[in-house]
Order: sequence, then C-alpha cells, then structure tokens
Amino acid sequence: MSGRFITFEGGEGAGKSSNLLWAAEWLRGQGVEVVCTREPGGTPLAEQIRTLFVHAGDEPLAPATELCLVFAARAQHVAQVIEPALAAGKWVLCDRFTDATYAYQGGGRGLSSALIGALEQTVLGGLRPHLTLLFDLPVADGLARARQRAALDRIEQEQQDFFERVRATYVARAAAEPERFRTVQAAAPLKQVQQQVQELLAEALRRWGPQ
Amino acid sequence: MSGRFITFEGGEGAGKSSNLLWAAEWLRGQGVEVVCTREPGGTPLAEQIRTLFVHAGDEPLAPATELCLVFAARAQHVAQVIEPALAAGKWVLCDRFTDATYAYQGGGRGLSSALIGALEQTVLGGLRPHLTLLFDLPVADGLARARQRAALDRIEQEQQDFFERVRATYVARAAAEPERFRTVQAAAPLKQVQQQVQELLAEALRRWGPQ
Repeated sequence: MSGRFITFEGGEGAGKSSNLLWAAEWLRGQGVEVVCTREPGGTPLAEQIRTLFVHAGDEPLAPATELCLVFAARAQHVAQVIEPALAAGKWVLCDRFTDATYAYQGGGRGLSSALIGALEQTVLGGLRPHLTLLFDLPVADGLARARQRAALDRIEQEQQDFFERVRATYVARAAAEPERFRTVQAAAPLKQVQQQVQELLAEALRRWGPQ
Repeated sequence: MSGRFITFEGGEGAGKSSNLLWAAEWLRGQGVEVVCTREPGGTPLAEQIRTLFVHAGDEPLAPATELCLVFAARAQHVAQVIEPALAAGKWVLCDRFTDATYAYQGGGRGLSSALIGALEQTVLGGLRPHLTLLFDLPVADGLARARQRAALDRIEQEQQDFFERVRATYVARAAAEPERFRTVQAAAPLKQVQQQVQELLAEALRRWGPQ
C-alpha cells in the first residue's frame, strides 16, 4: 500500500462533502492522483447491503446484525475501491468511514463501542486512515445549515441530543488520536474553512510527498 | 438462558435434516418443549441477507464481506429465534450453525478460520451449542444419497475434494471438543441411525432433565 487514505468526518451540515471535492481539486493541482469515494457503498453490492440495513421493515434489527451489515458493506468498499486505489499509489479521499460508525451507531444510538472495535479489528485488520479531517461545529449551527439545504424536515429536541452525542464522540476520538486527526473549525466562513483544509493538505504533502 | 441448544451438523446426504425432525418428535414424547429451526434464516431479514450473499452477481464478494453477511444473518436468527426460545426454557434444535461456517467457508473454500473465530467471538459472545450431533459418513456415500434425491445435478471431482475438506474440518472440530460433539455414524441404515440419535438424546435428558 503506497497511497494515502484520508477520511472526511463530521456531523450534519459541517460541509465535509463539498470540502472533499474542493480538496480533491486542490490536490490534483499539486500533481496528486486522487480517488473520491463515500460510504455507504462505492460498489453496487455495498449499496444493496446498506439498503437492507436502512429498510429492515418491521423486524427489529439486532445490534450485532446492524453492525455486521455496516462492516459487510465497508469490507466490500475496501476490497473493491479503497485497497486497489491505495495499491496503485493514489490518494483516497473518503466521505465517512469507521469513525462515523463510532459516532453515529456508538455515540448516537448507544451500540457498544467494544463491539464496534472488535469488528473493526476483525474485518479491517490494520487498515486505518492515514489522516482524518474532522469538520467540527456547534450542533445548532450544523442543523441550521442542513435545514437551509432542505435535507432535514423536522429537527426535534431528541434529534438534537442525538447529534450532540455524535459530536462529543467525534471530539473524543480526535483527542485520543492526535496523530491521525486534524480538526477543521467548520463554523467559519467557507473561504476560511478551505484555507484550513489547504494548510492541512499542504502539511500532509510535505510529510508524504505527492505520491 | 435455561433451555438447551442442540445443533445438527454434517455434509451432503448425511441425513441431519430428517433426523432433526425425528429427534424433535422423540423429545416431545419425553415431555420436552422443542423449537426446530435452521440456517440460513429463521427470520425474513436473515433470509434476505442470505439472498444477497448467494446472489452477489458479477461483483466478487470479498471474504470479509461474505463472513460479515453470514454472521449478520446468524445474529438476527439468534436474537429473533434462538435466544427467546432458550430464555423460555425450550430446547432448540438447529439445522447447521457456526460449525458449518468453519467446515464450508473455512475448510471447503479456504477462508481464514482465525477470521471466522474472531467474528464468532465478537458477534455471538459466549453462545455455543450445548450439544452438537455430527452426522458423519464417507463423502462418496453422502453424495450418492444426495444424487438419489436429485438435489445435486453434477458432482465433479473438484466438488468431491471440496466435500472431503468439509468432512475433515467437521471431524477435526469434533475431536477438538469432545465434550460438546457426539458423532453419529450416518452411513448405517436409518433405523440404526435413529437408535444412535435416541441414545444421545437420552444421555442429554439424563444430564439436563426435561427442561
């Protein structure tokens, strides 16, 4: 594996998806070969697995079932998309990865982080992002942005609590792994956010070289 | 968990499925409450997961994806069917369980038994069968029986090798866990096979009592 694996993480309305595309353009301008991908999916089968997981119907989804399906889709995404790109020396920019499972299924929904960690180790082995950009901003700001783009219809108090737990989990993970994580202050105006992203990528380029 | 979990394992044509039904009848005659179930499935969602796994289409299924899907279906089967029945004090007779994953995916297809073991531990925790009846017979005999019931169309040499590896894995697992496994000599005439099954269940009844 000679490429680099960079993940973009953060809550609703944090701007990670649009900044990922911007980052890819900037890196290409520096001569880096870039592959952009996102969870869930990246492959037709992985999309199908996620469909099963989202539309489970009336049957209650056991926590272990849910996590096995999440990791089944991820294993397929890794084998079909991420690992081949890394083996070809490319930089892979991925919109969400396992940190999102800890944040949403773990922190948000309360599934066991020990179970998530055991599956991560079993299924992914040593594969971890080389760099994770955490787009962090107050939950209320993110939800306001998400409302503006009409992606969310009803934001209830219960959902706000959920997103607070998601954010807290992300922040705790970033604090626990300072070598891997870089936090982007995502509440800033777009130009300033892009400036932060550019500086972090320039730092990565200095460390790793263009390939 | 106050019930008992008994699995029926073995290769093609070993007679485990019909002997499972016979065993259930015999146990009911002894006053035991019995639930019969089988892998894959036991629940609509688990069946859907298995469909995905069997009909993956042109996209190659990564080994970790395959095993995550197998254990996703199993986790759902355990949560929806097996654990509730055991909690209600019933005896669960299950046609194939994790030993079949070791035998078919591991021994037969060569997937890592370390990966299977890690998923087993992660997903099932301490849940293991209290008793496993291994219906063992020479591969050629089993395939001849399976041919007679027209379930198999073409038995090629390559498939015979596959089934030899499946059998060898089952036999090795039985030898490694003599407390849990009992081997049924399944090449014998049906009456004698039923006699063996009855003796093993009677032994279990003496050990555990009817509930």
